[in-house]
Amino acid sequence: MEDAQNANVPANQKVERVPKTIRNETFALKAEALKPTLHEWIDYPLSVVEFQPDPEAFFKCKAVQTHTIEELSTLSYGKGDQVILDFGSHRVGYLSFHVGVEGVNVDAPARLRLTFGEIPYDVTESLHPCNTWISTSWIPDEIINVDWLPTYVDMPRRYSFRYLKIEVIDTSPKYKVKFLDIKVRAVSAVSPLAAAAVPKLEVHDSELVKIDRISQVTLRDCMQMVFEDGPRRDRRLWLGDLRLQALANYCTFKDYALVKRCLYLFAALPREDGSLPGCLFEKPKLAPASDYIVDYDALFGPTVYDYAVASGDLETAIELWPTILGSMRMALAHVDEGGRFNSDAFSAWKFLDWSEGLDTNAGMHGLVLFCCKQINSLAILIEKDVPFADVVSKMVLAASAFYDESLGVFVSGPTSQVSWSSQAWLGLAGAMDSQTCLKAITTAMADPKAVKPLTPYAFHHVAESLACNGGQERCLELMREYWGGMVRAGADTFWECFDYEDSRRSPYGDCHNNSYCHAWSCTPSYLLRVVVKDFLQAADREQ
Amino acid sequence: MEDAQNANVPANQKVERVPKTIRNETFALKAEALKPTLHEWIDYPLSVVEFQPDPEAFFKCKAVQTHTIEELSTLSYGKGDQVILDFGSHRVGYLSFHVGVEGVNVDAPARLRLTFGEIPYDVTESLHPCNTWISTSWIPDEIINVDWLPTYVDMPRRYSFRYLKIEVIDTSPKYKVKFLDIKVRAVSAVSPLAAAAVPKLEVHDSELVKIDRISQVTLRDCMQMVFEDGPRRDRRLWLGDLRLQALANYCTFKDYALVKRCLYLFAALPREDGSLPGCLFEKPKLAPASDYIVDYDALFGPTVYDYAVASGDLETAIELWPTILGSMRMALAHVDEGGRFNSDAFSAWKFLDWSEGLDTNAGMHGLVLFCCKQINSLAILIEKDVPFADVVSKMVLAASAFYDESLGVFVSGPTSQVSWSSQAWLGLAGAMDSQTCLKAITTAMADPKAVKPLTPYAFHHVAESLACNGGQERCLELMREYWGGMVRAGADTFWECFDYEDSRRSPYGDCHNNSYCHAWSCTPSYLLRVVVKDFLQAADREQ
Repeated sequence: MEDAQNANVPANQKVERVPKTIRNETFALKAEALKPTLHEWIDYPLSVVEFQPDPEAFFKCKAVQTHTIEELSTLSYGKGDQVILDFGSHRVGYLSFHVGVEGVNVDAPARLRLTFGEIPYDVTESLHPCNTWISTSWIPDEIINVDWLPTYVDMPRRYSFRYLKIEVIDTSPKYKVKFLDIKVRAVSAVSPLAAAAVPKLEVHDSELVKIDRISQVTLRDCMQMVFEDGPRRDRRLWLGDLRLQALANYCTFKDYALVKRCLYLFAALPREDGSLPGCLFEKPKLAPASDYIVDYDALFGPTVYDYAVASGDLETAIELWPTILGSMRMALAHVDEGGRFNSDAFSAWKFLDWSEGLDTNAGMHGLVLFCCKQINSLAILIEKDVPFADVVSKMVLAASAFYDESLGVFVSGPTSQVSWSSQAWLGLAGAMDSQTCLKAITTAMADPKAVKPLTPYAFHHVAESLACNGGQERCLELMREYWGGMVRAGADTFWECFDYEDSRRSPYGDCHNNSYCHAWSCTPSYLLRVVVKDFLQAADREQ
Repeated sequence: MEDAQNANVPANQKVERVPKTIRNETFALKAEALKPTLHEWIDYPLSVVEFQPDPEAFFKCKAVQTHTIEELSTLSYGKGDQVILDFGSHRVGYLSFHVGVEGVNVDAPARLRLTFGEIPYDVTESLHPCNTWISTSWIPDEIINVDWLPTYVDMPRRYSFRYLKIEVIDTSPKYKVKFLDIKVRAVSAVSPLAAAAVPKLEVHDSELVKIDRISQVTLRDCMQMVFEDGPRRDRRLWLGDLRLQALANYCTFKDYALVKRCLYLFAALPREDGSLPGCLFEKPKLAPASDYIVDYDALFGPTVYDYAVASGDLETAIELWPTILGSMRMALAHVDEGGRFNSDAFSAWKFLDWSEGLDTNAGMHGLVLFCCKQINSLAILIEKDVPFADVVSKMVLAASAFYDESLGVFVSGPTSQVSWSSQAWLGLAGAMDSQTCLKAITTAMADPKAVKPLTPYAFHHVAESLACNGGQERCLELMREYWGGMVRAGADTFWECFDYEDSRRSPYGDCHNNSYCHAWSCTPSYLLRVVVKDFLQAADREQ
């Protein structure tokens, strides 16, 4: 995700003062000691392509091979020429290539623009100017000047891409350039061996297999020195995104150390009120972002719980227990005497999703209740006093206040807003019985006026909530529609946001600044391998 | 200079076939062994400036200090901001700086455009698009993306500049950047000590002192691993330019080794017909350019002669003697039975100057005669048989065929063209008596229809020819007008081309691709310290 720039944050929730960080050096050192050695491998472009119009395609174009990659060495490019290379699928890494020459004299430098494309638009359109309210410095292009040819060029920055466009801004009238030995030194905390060792998803449905595979590639490419939210843009560790990545990781790559490291990174940066930052920076040195999100803060405890259960490492959970209790303070401060979450209680950002105008009262009620329950479970696991038994009782009771009997859905805020997210979180929290919750979710989903999710992050919670409340079939349907929709649109990795009716949809004003390999989109592996696993196997047997 | 791209070369002189190079490995190794160790020193910007309109100024603007350099550390820059720094004078070298930050989060890279300006236009105007027929890859700007801030940035390429403009293309709404510890690691084959050791020009005329000083800075900044023609653009070793640089060097920095190296570089690359390339490439490996210029070829011998006289190193001249004889073949092949140079005899480029429509018959006659005489003198010095005694006699006689008695000038070609360059070279060659030659030059200079020089290279030969034929006063006048004109226009180093009536004049279509520190412009030190030395001292004594 990107920070809010306060743009979509209601005015009354803008944070005026950032609480001081009380850095925990012991935890910072633990995180440092867990720094992964990134795995590296070399990949090559598979073909030279051009994009031709295709009105049927999601991006209105399709890649057509114009040359085999072997033929590339026979091609030369002069001023104004361009070439697009297709690496076949998404990679995160470092590009290098050899620039050869053809001509009588290399009497001037070569000026090239390299554009790294995750999707066709990145290489079929000009990325400048970019009409976005976040930083345009993320736009994935570089202009380089190469003085002495022929030579190897090593690009020092890391890129996230499937397509590489090279535009020759100029050589000189005396020579053209050739591009040889193009390769990417791909990097990930996940080794190719570990990726290959993930057991196949045992279903016959090839669409689900594909969705699972793309989830894993998405996750792998986001797993670097931390769990990044997106290797193209933002590249930071966000708490809510971490939780989902960790869940997908436990049932695939099982890299417990990287999760542990990330937990300690957050635990190293508590603020004076016990809260944890929404995200943090690992480079150039460990530092919290000023962004604070109430729901992300509260999700720290559940993330530790998931980790403890998956890894069996209870020691870490015990050590982080005081941090967990601190991380619930701000969320619980929003809960009134009657046990009801009130978003207006404090001017702190409640996220849940980027969907416009989303009222967070009901959804946050569900989320905080969910967190309290998870932390209570963790307390039992690590033999601590259960901290939130009373809160849970109160909040379960108060949940009925959000429920509209006549509509059969949870409503939120002064306008009784119906949203998918409200249902999802109250469902995940088990705020009412499963049948009621499932009906609430499906009712909202059938209501064209209900506020729909914008992000895969929110879609995940809807999908998981469906499955947890007996709606496994509906969960699979949603996955086929949403993540399957991205697959049909040509996704190599799952995206930061997806609207199957609008290939230019962006939370940031311009899709050229979207990220198309985004952590919070990688959860289908978890849904398929854990959440609906039994249901899938039973259904598969029946076929 | 830049190669011709055949653009200004008459159609009948276009070269169809490049003769094969017969590489002389012994000479290449000698050149390699003479590779200089570049001297380095650190310089800092002196002030933060902006350019304000000034209708009186040559470039129609003047630099005004907006901040002291100490204040720079207190300034921060966000999206769309820019800062211009003035280093006080021209440097060739490597830029580095520290990018600091001011803001709550560095949540995105910083994208900066750095533009290296030799003159105000470079930093007051957009350099793109550049309407030029040579390579726009020379445009001195870079776009860089800096991932992790704060950090030091080391620019790996060498730049040639006085002004540095930094434009902040974007940071993020969360932070601004600061620029600290900006410095240039200046480089030259000439050490600061050697530069400081050059004796002061002993005249009272401060304008001439200034011209001499700027000549030396120009020469110093062009003296790198070879004598470059311009450190900003081209950066190559051209034979005709080398001769002038060497002459200025002997009376200032006295770096004989670098001249010797360059002589061997050319001698390492003779072509099968004995001719030498017009210029050569040192990097990435020694190679001749395809450009061939008859006059540059012929000037190799005089360059060796100058070197032998200045350095006393006769051994090198002896070793290069066969190369010298080979380098005259093409030029002499243009001389007919009657001893007259005929430009149309072969379709090879005769340069002399960039002035449009220049007829080269008369000028080349003078140049070849000059070269023959110099080589004959060298033969005597190194005790070889004088090779061109007959040719000289014939060509001196034939020179009268170019002389128009009624006009008192040398004329050239079928239209009897009058040009400054024709007079200059026939004067330098002593084609007629000094009085006649001097009158021919001054008559042409007074003729508004005469073809004027465009380049300092041609102006030099006019100035030297004036002085050599008794016109020292006119030589000084021309220097004050031409090089003095650049000084009055604000030159820190002397330019590739100068038209005091047109600050946008360019041989390449767009002044943004001009070079403003250009070797062939550095000769005033030689003119003042050698050619008009005695005259100046006498005149100075009289004051």
